[in-house]
Formats: sequence, structure tokens, C-alpha cells
Amino acid sequence: MIAGPSVTRDRHGLEIISVEECWRLLASSPVGRIGFTTAGQVQVLPVTYGLQDRSIVFRTGPGQKLGAAVMHQPVAFEIDAWSATDRNGWSVLVMGVAEEVTDPARTELLEQSDIIPWAPAGHSDQWVRIMPEEVTGRRLR
Amino acid sequence: MIAGPSVTRDRHGLEIISVEECWRLLASSPVGRIGFTTAGQVQVLPVTYGLQDRSIVFRTGPGQKLGAAVMHQPVAFEIDAWSATDRNGWSVLVMGVAEEVTDPARTELLEQSDIIPWAPAGHSDQWVRIMPEEVTGRRLR
Repeated sequence: MIAGPSVTRDRHGLEIISVEECWRLLASSPVGRIGFTTAGQVQVLPVTYGLQDRSIVFRTGPGQKLGAAVMHQPVAFEIDAWSATDRNGWSVLVMGVAEEVTDPARTELLEQSDIIPWAPAGHSDQWVRIMPEEVTGRRLR
Repeated sequence: MIAGPSVTRDRHGLEIISVEECWRLLASSPVGRIGFTTAGQVQVLPVTYGLQDRSIVFRTGPGQKLGAAVMHQPVAFEIDAWSATDRNGWSVLVMGVAEEVTDPARTELLEQSDIIPWAPAGHSDQWVRIMPEEVTGRRLR
């Protein structure tokens, strides 16, 4: 992409992706990674996800440590793309707090969605959403 | 991939990727994500990286917060792949501690490599390596 005059860059020379464009990228990516800490150790795991209103939603099985580890905790959610051909890429980072979706109207909508869990789930899935507090994105050039 | 009888699965039904296979996947991926905490907040950022011996190596510019944030800290490093067509994927997670590469013999080798920084760097790059303490991988099926 050729940088036009309207491109805003950060102090490292990276193009700042607008919040609106971040959400468009979030809406079009099937997989992201959630970063969280458990027992003082940072972990990063992939999740297949969707959006509901402006929150990131994914499902975990009842026995999966991911659900318990992230609930009510500050987490990071990242998506990115990289082209080896032209050595260009972008990334979007969402910082927020994870919580269980318990509203029946919301879970019903989610059950009808095509959002699948990354890991094979048990009979009773748990829906987790990340309520975003900060959404930022950068493009290399 | 059809699971043969030699496939080992974890309690969530995910195929366990052997450590050797994890390193093969790490050697063939151009981009990974580093998870770290700074001021109590988890962050996940993409890095283009390479391997030197069995450590993950990437470069950051002198003014970039990433270098300072991860140095001597426990970090997570993740790579993954996802196929929307057959809804299959895998991920590898490396847990370890980040440190600066200061040995001139090693940095000289790195300077000759094709490892580029994700963000445009300043004149004096800093080489960071993650010394792995645990390497795990999972494949959906």
C-alpha cells in the first residue's frame, strides 16, 4: 500500500490504523490470539471468534482452563496478517476484560452463529466475551 | 489429517504435537507473536523472527518499548495456522525468558541473517532472544 498524505504514523514509523478500520479487520478475521496471565505466566492461545456488538466472543468447553483463567481478568486479543512476498503486515490489539456471556438472549444468538470453539468442546459450552477498553492497530507501510 | 493410532491427545481431544515437530514448525514460520506484561497489562505483538540454536531471535529498534518490556521477563511466544476450509489448525507455544543477545559472534551471525524487524528500526538494532523453558504444540485433528 502506498502511503498517501492522510496516513498517520507513530513514532516508530508505523501507520496507525483507525479504530473503525480495526473493527473492520476484526470482523473479517476468523482466528485471533488471546494473551492472559495464569500463575504469573503469560500465555498466548489461538481462538476462533466472532463479534457481538463491539465485543469479541469465543467459546470454550467447561473443563478448559482458558475460560477460568481469563474470566474477569485483563486480557489482550491480537490479530495480524503478514505477507512474506512484500514483507508487509498489520496487527490489531484489543485490550479489555473477559467475562462470561450469561444473558440468555445473547447466548441464544451466539448458539445460532457459526462461531466454533478452537478445541473440541464438551456438551455445555461457555461463551466468553472480551469487553474492549482499547483498540489499536498498526500497519507496516 | 486422519489421526493414526500413534496420535497422542490431551484431555480436550487435541492432538499433542511433539517437541521436535514444534521446532520444525517454528523453523518454517516467518511471524510469531510475543506475549508479555507491562505495567500489569498483558500485550501481544507480532514479530518477524528466526531461530538461533534453539532460541527464538528477533530484533527491535532502540526506542521501541518491546525490547525494554520483555528483557529478563517471562514471555510467551506463539505461532499458529488455521484453515477455514476444513476448520483445522495448530498452534505452538513457547514459554521462556527474553534476554538481549550481546555475544559479538552471535550478533554478527544475526546481522547476516534475513531476520528483519517488524517495525522500522533505528540505526542500532537490538537483538532479543527467548530462551525456551517449555515448548508445547496442539493440532485440532
